[in-house]
Amino acid sequence: MLSKAKIKFIKSLQLKKYRKQEQCFVVQGAKSVHELLLSDFEIQFVLGTTEFLDAASLPKGLEIIAVQENELAGLSEFQTNDAALAVARMKPNTPVKIAPGEFALVLDDIRDPGNLGTIIRTADWFGISKIIASEETADIYNAKVISATMGSFVRVEMYYTALTDYLQSIKLPVYGAYLDGADVHTQAFHDGGFVVIGNESRGISPEIGQFITQKITIPQYGKAESLNAAIATAIICDNIRRPK
Amino acid sequence: MLSKAKIKFIKSLQLKKYRKQEQCFVVQGAKSVHELLLSDFEIQFVLGTTEFLDAASLPKGLEIIAVQENELAGLSEFQTNDAALAVARMKPNTPVKIAPGEFALVLDDIRDPGNLGTIIRTADWFGISKIIASEETADIYNAKVISATMGSFVRVEMYYTALTDYLQSIKLPVYGAYLDGADVHTQAFHDGGFVVIGNESRGISPEIGQFITQKITIPQYGKAESLNAAIATAIICDNIRRPK
Repeated sequence: MLSKAKIKFIKSLQLKKYRKQEQCFVVQGAKSVHELLLSDFEIQFVLGTTEFLDAASLPKGLEIIAVQENELAGLSEFQTNDAALAVARMKPNTPVKIAPGEFALVLDDIRDPGNLGTIIRTADWFGISKIIASEETADIYNAKVISATMGSFVRVEMYYTALTDYLQSIKLPVYGAYLDGADVHTQAFHDGGFVVIGNESRGISPEIGQFITQKITIPQYGKAESLNAAIATAIICDNIRRPK
Repeated sequence: MLSKAKIKFIKSLQLKKYRKQEQCFVVQGAKSVHELLLSDFEIQFVLGTTEFLDAASLPKGLEIIAVQENELAGLSEFQTNDAALAVARMKPNTPVKIAPGEFALVLDDIRDPGNLGTIIRTADWFGISKIIASEETADIYNAKVISATMGSFVRVEMYYTALTDYLQSIKLPVYGAYLDGADVHTQAFHDGGFVVIGNESRGISPEIGQFITQKITIPQYGKAESLNAAIATAIICDNIRRPK
């Protein structure tokens, strides 16, 4: 039985203010809730249709509430969700450790939740699991971000911090996409390092640009002036990973 | 002076039904309206702040209405727009001609307007200017699509049609991304052809799959199960264009 208090609690988590206060966030849809159940996130409770719950691998002791599809629809913020919803505890915002040879992304104010979610999903596809983000970057626990990650949020560690301070302590190469950099098709990406992705409107800010040790460029063959931030991320990651 | 009738007309074009009836669509924001003014689209009228209009290259005889920022904000469907808005005539839906050696995209039900817009922008970056789309694909004249193209809608020809009929008459290679295809990193893309991009949820449908002459695969290095449709498009285009 879904109580009014739970409905109110779930809906309150649409706002960052309440997510921060409660240290909890909402995961919606069968695919994402399945991924959450297999992850190391601490889950508060799961709502699911009987069809979803019968097929799910549910840990013992977890609070489970069987609901009707229309109850889920009423809780859904923006996406159609006819299967499941879970509330889980946010992870603490702790610095990520970069291993030798590893690549990490640095997000210089990615404001659009859909872009952030797509970047996380793309990073996960390319085996990049550490992301350092400016404090102005969209909140990973925003429902639109979680949805756009298609479950990849469980495998990627995000660390929100003041980027200028963070980058000052870095010794690895720092790559950033500019119009006048080295061609990503021929650039050697040997030693791991950081790939800075600039803001959707203004690109990489000058304050962050001073830490770039290697400017790179995605060759343009047509007339669009720029690429979407998530698209640029994907092309750079594919060029990092491809055999040289 | 912006009349009530014009406001009503502009707002009516938010719906596909009225766009179809009037054969007109709305373009919002300085960047997109600038691109429109330089294109071969037939423009009905332009609203702009005096700052925008002073800087714009406006053809003679075009109806121009100077407006305040707050008037534009009131007309804006979803994005912040503080500079300009234009209404232009839709182009007729005519078959695109593919030249020898040319690549074209085939969209098998891309439903999300943001994805469609990003695909158009990405195609334009990579010099691909012909797109054949299923009738279930999002409408290019939807304001969210136009916005996500960042002006590239003026350079890309879209043709909406029944894909199975269309593909039956094709003699060029038809590429499609599957999990068990040839590696895009080593696949030779010699002779031009069609690249089919599958629907966001189900990928390429079996009816369209039968026309694929070359299955290709984007190598996966991590654990995400799939890539966003626009991301996959970008990686395939980059691999088509890069020197072998």
